Amino acid sequence: MKLGVLQERRPGETRVALVPAQVPLAANPKTGLEVLVEPGAGLHAGFSDAEYAEKGATIAADRAQVLAQADVLLCVRLPEDSETLVALNGSKTLIGMADPLGNPQLIADLAGRGLRVFALELIPRITRAQNMDVLSSMATVSGYKAVLLAANHLTRMFPMLMTAAGTIPPAKVLVLGAGVAGLQALATARRLGAVTMGYDVRIAAREQVESLGAKFVELDLKADDAEGAGGYAKQLDQSFYDRQRQLLGRVIAECDVVISTAAVPGSKSPLLIDEAAVQGMKSGSVIVDLAAERGGNCALTIPDRTIQAHSITILGPTNLPASVPTHASQLYSRNLVNFITHLSKLGLLGGNSTETDDQIARETLACDRGEVQSVPVRHKLGLPVKTPEAVGS
Amino acid sequence: MKLGVLQERRPGETRVALVPAQVPLAANPKTGLEVLVEPGAGLHAGFSDAEYAEKGATIAADRAQVLAQADVLLCVRLPEDSETLVALNGSKTLIGMADPLGNPQLIADLAGRGLRVFALELIPRITRAQNMDVLSSMATVSGYKAVLLAANHLTRMFPMLMTAAGTIPPAKVLVLGAGVAGLQALATARRLGAVTMGYDVRIAAREQVESLGAKFVELDLKADDAEGAGGYAKQLDQSFYDRQRQLLGRVIAECDVVISTAAVPGSKSPLLIDEAAVQGMKSGSVIVDLAAERGGNCALTIPDRTIQAHSITILGPTNLPASVPTHASQLYSRNLVNFITHLSKLGLLGGNSTETDDQIARETLACDRGEVQSVPVRHKLGLPVKTPEAVGS
Repeated sequence: MKLGVLQERRPGETRVALVPAQVPLAANPKTGLEVLVEPGAGLHAGFSDAEYAEKGATIAADRAQVLAQADVLLCVRLPEDSETLVALNGSKTLIGMADPLGNPQLIADLAGRGLRVFALELIPRITRAQNMDVLSSMATVSGYKAVLLAANHLTRMFPMLMTAAGTIPPAKVLVLGAGVAGLQALATARRLGAVTMGYDVRIAAREQVESLGAKFVELDLKADDAEGAGGYAKQLDQSFYDRQRQLLGRVIAECDVVISTAAVPGSKSPLLIDEAAVQGMKSGSVIVDLAAERGGNCALTIPDRTIQAHSITILGPTNLPASVPTHASQLYSRNLVNFITHLSKLGLLGGNSTETDDQIARETLACDRGEVQSVPVRHKLGLPVKTPEAVGS
Repeated sequence: MKLGVLQERRPGETRVALVPAQVPLAANPKTGLEVLVEPGAGLHAGFSDAEYAEKGATIAADRAQVLAQADVLLCVRLPEDSETLVALNGSKTLIGMADPLGNPQLIADLAGRGLRVFALELIPRITRAQNMDVLSSMATVSGYKAVLLAANHLTRMFPMLMTAAGTIPPAKVLVLGAGVAGLQALATARRLGAVTMGYDVRIAAREQVESLGAKFVELDLKADDAEGAGGYAKQLDQSFYDRQRQLLGRVIAECDVVISTAAVPGSKSPLLIDEAAVQGMKSGSVIVDLAAERGGNCALTIPDRTIQAHSITILGPTNLPASVPTHASQLYSRNLVNFITHLSKLGLLGGNSTETDDQIARETLACDRGEVQSVPVRHKLGLPVKTPEAVGS
């Protein structure tokens, strides 16, 4: 069976789904798999065709050959351009990220073309699947990079400096949302010498925030049950968010940098930083809004833009992992290889049937046999759900 | 006597010479000084006119008023635009940075206009003047920011990460030149989790490099006496540099990031990284050349540009302190206030005579009474030196 590695075509996407060093993990005599690489697929991530060839992959003549000959196509982000989709026939399996809850229509379209799609964002948050969890590995990169961007735009320095020209106090960095990205941001900001603070509606986050040397910000709010399924934050009601914004504004006014990472999967991000809070910050301060793609945690965020408002710099990056493409690809690739290996062991890679009791394979399968299979994606599309007992949160 | 604070006019200059918090240190009943600020002077650095007024400064109606009424003009970089210079009459004193060894003609021009200029780059590197040393304080900011820029452009991450998606090794960062900027770069890179290495021709640098947890790179070269006056590196001969480049190339090939800071005051920077060394680096690596203004330590550097060559990103920033304007201004301002206070105590601030035995005042005085006074600047201009026994290196 042939695994195809495509060059990513979405604007700004620099990662590659499989890196040369991991070709032998996927394709070896034991797995019976071969790897076919589109020319230049790894170039933006820093991997040459020669490196792929050296590790046992075949470099295709062109993209068309990969699309025609590969049985399973490995992607960072699933193709949505018609040129690519037209070239794929219904016997193909696509594995990659597809934003299935944010853009369920793409899954419906791919289903309509008869393709089998495993959407890696749907991998369940269970211990067994941790090494396939692309959302976590990419969030690690985003949290790190968000701090670098903030430090680069801040008109002040992060570390305390005691020099002959006087003392510079350390920057105060507040991280909103203590998921993987938020915790990595806290760790990175502290490495750079900042005084760090973390906030999260989930009570379980306190210990994690404090373990990174950060202060846990406590607001006078009742949210005992803000943790939903899989450890993600769940959506709360409006009066809660109003009060939260008001109290957060006072904390934000003391900070040089705010990094906001509060996202609820598939839903609009909660508004945590209103315009008044931005106005309350010191001139030259920075907000990096990692929730920009789903509306942002800050009222003034514009996705993929860096703006100045009230003398504050507000960044709304939507794909930070693509700005660290070598290592982001390496981590993603490892997740993907673990997932493929898992499917392969279950006999689900490229076989006719996807019937399985395995939770990972079942929940990650977005579409198959002409139909959307994922229960949460069917919910988003308003499609009837066939197996009510399996409905996710 | 009135001190005037001008808005900086050179392209990209965001700093301000005096920050509001330090107005009371300069202007108080004891010193008998007043501060007159051009409207908007501190804006780019994050300081409003209101803050200056609150601290006791007078906000002028416009720039012309400052130029007309101030006796001493405080600058980050001395004005060179004719509009400003024409408005200044010969009774004024200018204090600021003027690049006197790189651009001695400006000093000659200012001398021709009868202005008295103290060029802060000429402050002697003696313990007593440490708190006035603008080159050191600005180099601290540059070294810090150079690492942030490098980390931002690198396609890999700095810290070692051990995740469910495998292990990311720490980045290797090499710093060439272990002066103030180089040492701050080493400290910052290590904070971010990189493995650090430092190189300098001066033997005294080893201990400083190692004290920051970095490895001192030893090349098989003889340069026992590479340290010139004031602790700066001195110029060495060509065969030394050829051999150095060759040996450095091997070290550079192993690195993800090179930050080069090797500058010889007033001279062309030594070429340490040739094109072959750039080609030898891994794809996606980064060079930040802090010596860009004087030709650069890397053969491919273009001042104030970020270029890609052989899949390597090469940055040639010439004014990094201006990218951290709030804190850079704060440090600069403190140096300046210390210098003014020193002059004032000696009775040299705005007086008729600048005759003094004080080394700091004497060496920093670039021009006065229609003539270039600084011995090294006179050397650069090919002017006869009146007091041979006082010649600097």
